[in-house]
Amino acid sequence: MGDDSAITFEELQLAARNHAMPLEALRYPITPVGLHYLLTHYDIPKVDAAEWRLEVGGLVDRTLTLSIEEVRDRPRVTLPVTMECAGNGRALLSPRPVSQPWLTEAVGTIAWTGTPLRGLLDEAGPTDGALEVLFTGLDRGVEGGVEQAYERSLPLEEARREEVLLAYEANGQPLPPQHGAPLRLVVPGWYGMTQVKWLAEISLLGEPFAGYQQARAYRIWESAGEGEGQPVTRMLPRSLTEPPGFPEFMTRARFIDAGPCTLRGRAWSGWGPIARVEVSVDGGLTWGDAKVGEPPSSSAWHPWAFDWTAEPGESVLVSRATDATGRTQPLGERDAWNVKGYSNNAVQRMPVVVRQATELA
Amino acid sequence: MGDDSAITFEELQLAARNHAMPLEALRYPITPVGLHYLLTHYDIPKVDAAEWRLEVGGLVDRTLTLSIEEVRDRPRVTLPVTMECAGNGRALLSPRPVSQPWLTEAVGTIAWTGTPLRGLLDEAGPTDGALEVLFTGLDRGVEGGVEQAYERSLPLEEARREEVLLAYEANGQPLPPQHGAPLRLVVPGWYGMTQVKWLAEISLLGEPFAGYQQARAYRIWESAGEGEGQPVTRMLPRSLTEPPGFPEFMTRARFIDAGPCTLRGRAWSGWGPIARVEVSVDGGLTWGDAKVGEPPSSSAWHPWAFDWTAEPGESVLVSRATDATGRTQPLGERDAWNVKGYSNNAVQRMPVVVRQATELA
Repeated sequence: MGDDSAITFEELQLAARNHAMPLEALRYPITPVGLHYLLTHYDIPKVDAAEWRLEVGGLVDRTLTLSIEEVRDRPRVTLPVTMECAGNGRALLSPRPVSQPWLTEAVGTIAWTGTPLRGLLDEAGPTDGALEVLFTGLDRGVEGGVEQAYERSLPLEEARREEVLLAYEANGQPLPPQHGAPLRLVVPGWYGMTQVKWLAEISLLGEPFAGYQQARAYRIWESAGEGEGQPVTRMLPRSLTEPPGFPEFMTRARFIDAGPCTLRGRAWSGWGPIARVEVSVDGGLTWGDAKVGEPPSSSAWHPWAFDWTAEPGESVLVSRATDATGRTQPLGERDAWNVKGYSNNAVQRMPVVVRQATELA
Repeated sequence: MGDDSAITFEELQLAARNHAMPLEALRYPITPVGLHYLLTHYDIPKVDAAEWRLEVGGLVDRTLTLSIEEVRDRPRVTLPVTMECAGNGRALLSPRPVSQPWLTEAVGTIAWTGTPLRGLLDEAGPTDGALEVLFTGLDRGVEGGVEQAYERSLPLEEARREEVLLAYEANGQPLPPQHGAPLRLVVPGWYGMTQVKWLAEISLLGEPFAGYQQARAYRIWESAGEGEGQPVTRMLPRSLTEPPGFPEFMTRARFIDAGPCTLRGRAWSGWGPIARVEVSVDGGLTWGDAKVGEPPSSSAWHPWAFDWTAEPGESVLVSRATDATGRTQPLGERDAWNVKGYSNNAVQRMPVVVRQATELA
């Protein structure tokens, strides 16, 4: 169950503020507001939507300054999108990279409503030299010794994908403050660090952005001092199991009754649709194929189901997703380790105690 | 900063699921959904609102069985209520009681809409022998070795207070699953353990309820093996400060600029209105009185403000609430310690670094 070394007070401070999606919320194809995972690097900024403006500038023919009403007047799209934190699974790595200590459930699917980014980019007209699009949020803090506004860039081609949205509603409601009100970026398929909240500025750049969140954070280093590292981009495939039965409060141990039981869960990948979900009820010794269903959108997780007859005793439930590109999940965290603990998509292991019917009296 | 001993993996599991209110959300008089603190003992149960019924029975003249529409057809009240977890502040105690490891911010204020419980009790007609009202939720789990549905009781007189509600909306929206849909109990002034979610049954009892959550959990023991302990009931006074300036990501250290600064926060007590909030910017050596404002309701927190001219250097911000009954906050956790870590209302201490204007260039 991960690194045995003490979880620090600083990690606890982050875990108390930020939160994962309780795994039982896997039952919802669209995650209710308040159950979707939430990571706020700095503070949730105080934004007056009436005063707020979005600036689109840099290497463009026409700079734009838009009120939230002007953004809402543009073409409107609603798209369910599965989003996962790049640090999901970090606290299960050993040695444990010290940052937000996620277990397996920093994920969720919200139906975002907004306007396609491509439309605004076309209005502004990127000049020939434009290579990247930089997104700047209103959230401000210090990280790695650098005082900064949260900023991330995307290659222009990626930013022009038709499903990339500037979102102002979540699940049919006005965007809540914690999800980036009044306007945020949503880039289906990519990890959460890309999805800049409290968006203030969009700027076309002629060279790759080298700011903190692009060049120093969110890089994969296999060992310390290894050069520039690899950028964190799209979500690797992952499957999670909806916990059957009921839990013990403190240990979160699970209890189920012996007999027929349909295990359910959801699986996703930022690289392509899910092609296969395999399930094991014996900790990975033997596997069977789950039935994989249709996702709420091509940018969201697939449901899966697996029929099982639970025999009394202890069982360890494991599921493994493989996407259409052939990417799959490692069976152990050892194969997913990297210095900062990103993109750990090792399979989830859920021990359950199967009880005899007679124990239920 | 509390107990130095390792935070355990089990505590981390709870901290990843449950979450406090990020302190910057003190800026909102009514906490947006998703930012209010949330503690779920077991799992959020799956409830079909169309099939759901509320049973009112036990020592009554007429048992009632009500659909959610029948509850909604009864008199409708909206009331902002400040609610705090009884374990708030637990992780700052030393030695640290091991359970959900809250720091200071397991609180929030929601405008609940529902029907007064008193009306339903009057309809059912408690018999002469009725002493307590037992509330049973649909959430089920194992705790302290006992398999149980979550249940808590109130003295009948307390349950008949006019501000006690059965709530089906939160901040004008249908109650979200995590807050107890389709119906929950709201008892203004009491800690969160009283506010039974996913309510299934209300039962009038002729003697005090002795179930797990009443007689074994939520008791204050000053030392182990000390008899029955004291029950946890109403919220002790507490004040929290809205963090000024901006944070460092990992340490949550705060930075502000030298010069005039209005500190703001909110203060509440379950025993009476807030009579006084004192503020110290030097860790408690000297104190001044904050201006205390009107709360959103008589069941909710009061805003306060304190003008300060920040001088360069380090400062420790402290605020202390006193209510109309004279109850106040201890200055140190040592005076708030008890075996299970309930009702720790020791003052919050927030270190900030005040920077010279020239450092901002």
